[in-house]
Amino acid sequence: MSTVLKYATKRRTIRKFDSNPINIEDVLMALKIGAQAPSGANYQPWRFIIIDDPKLKRRIREASEDGEKEFYKKVSGDWAEWLESKKLNPSKPFLEEAPLLVVVLAQNGIPYSTESVWTAIGYILLALEELNLSTVTYTPSDTKRVLEVLNVPETFRLEAILPIGKSNDTKIKEPRYEISDLVRFNNWHL
Amino acid sequence: MSTVLKYATKRRTIRKFDSNPINIEDVLMALKIGAQAPSGANYQPWRFIIIDDPKLKRRIREASEDGEKEFYKKVSGDWAEWLESKKLNPSKPFLEEAPLLVVVLAQNGIPYSTESVWTAIGYILLALEELNLSTVTYTPSDTKRVLEVLNVPETFRLEAILPIGKSNDTKIKEPRYEISDLVRFNNWHL
Repeated sequence: MSTVLKYATKRRTIRKFDSNPINIEDVLMALKIGAQAPSGANYQPWRFIIIDDPKLKRRIREASEDGEKEFYKKVSGDWAEWLESKKLNPSKPFLEEAPLLVVVLAQNGIPYSTESVWTAIGYILLALEELNLSTVTYTPSDTKRVLEVLNVPETFRLEAILPIGKSNDTKIKEPRYEISDLVRFNNWHL
Repeated sequence: MSTVLKYATKRRTIRKFDSNPINIEDVLMALKIGAQAPSGANYQPWRFIIIDDPKLKRRIREASEDGEKEFYKKVSGDWAEWLESKKLNPSKPFLEEAPLLVVVLAQNGIPYSTESVWTAIGYILLALEELNLSTVTYTPSDTKRVLEVLNVPETFRLEAILPIGKSNDTKIKEPRYEISDLVRFNNWHL
């Protein structure tokens, strides 16, 4: 079987982590792999802040949860139903429980910077899977508070926080559509 | 060496293709791998149109180049300099020369759909590398004309066109920053 297929299929989003420390060299390897992704005009608009200080993880968690509380007051429709169905709520314990967080930043004013950074995140997810590490691509509802905690200048924005660690989560992977439901040939109309 | 590292490092953007047909099963495998990516609320907002009809490839090329010609009249600054330095111009022959195109669509009105689709594209790029196929993540300056050619409804937008084939390009990979230039610890300030 294709190796990439194996990692892509096996990889699932994890929100509960074993709190034991992980090897930071593994995390640096995953980021090094992400930094090999292509980017618009090869600007490489990604930057990463690795956080392992427990006090700082707590502050990131608090800054994120403050924003989530405001978001949950306003959310409605399909998105609210999905949050409810998955028992998601403003509490984000994984930001403290994971041994390490990677805050993924994108440079502002660079063409295709969001697209480029998320291509790199795709690389990072597969790299982490190969390294037997788990994560969730979490984007706080209010990124400004987190950026302030980390003293990030206004030339960068937050795209995602990746809490990284060994999985302590027993839930199964969310089902995916069959490829035949996603692909058409030579026209939108079948 | 890590397998994902190997594919990520080896993989480079290709704009010149051998026009010989490729195995469509390989392309479907790469898309199947992409469709294993995580997405906001597991909406899986990605759809793919595979194009191998030469007449249709020509129409996609024309629709794209019409938009590029208008874009190149307006572009300025760093971006214009980069385009100039790379000898890029409104001509997009790879849209006709590659044996096959994959048009990557994203569902509108879905939270984090751009982020989700580009995570999937990250997976697809590594999958294609393993399959010994090359591509470039090309986004037309004006996507509307291409969507019209393919009769895509307004509920979807175009994120990228991936021309796929065997490389016929001798250029080397663009250099990447060292990981030490991209990573900070526990704070933006070193």
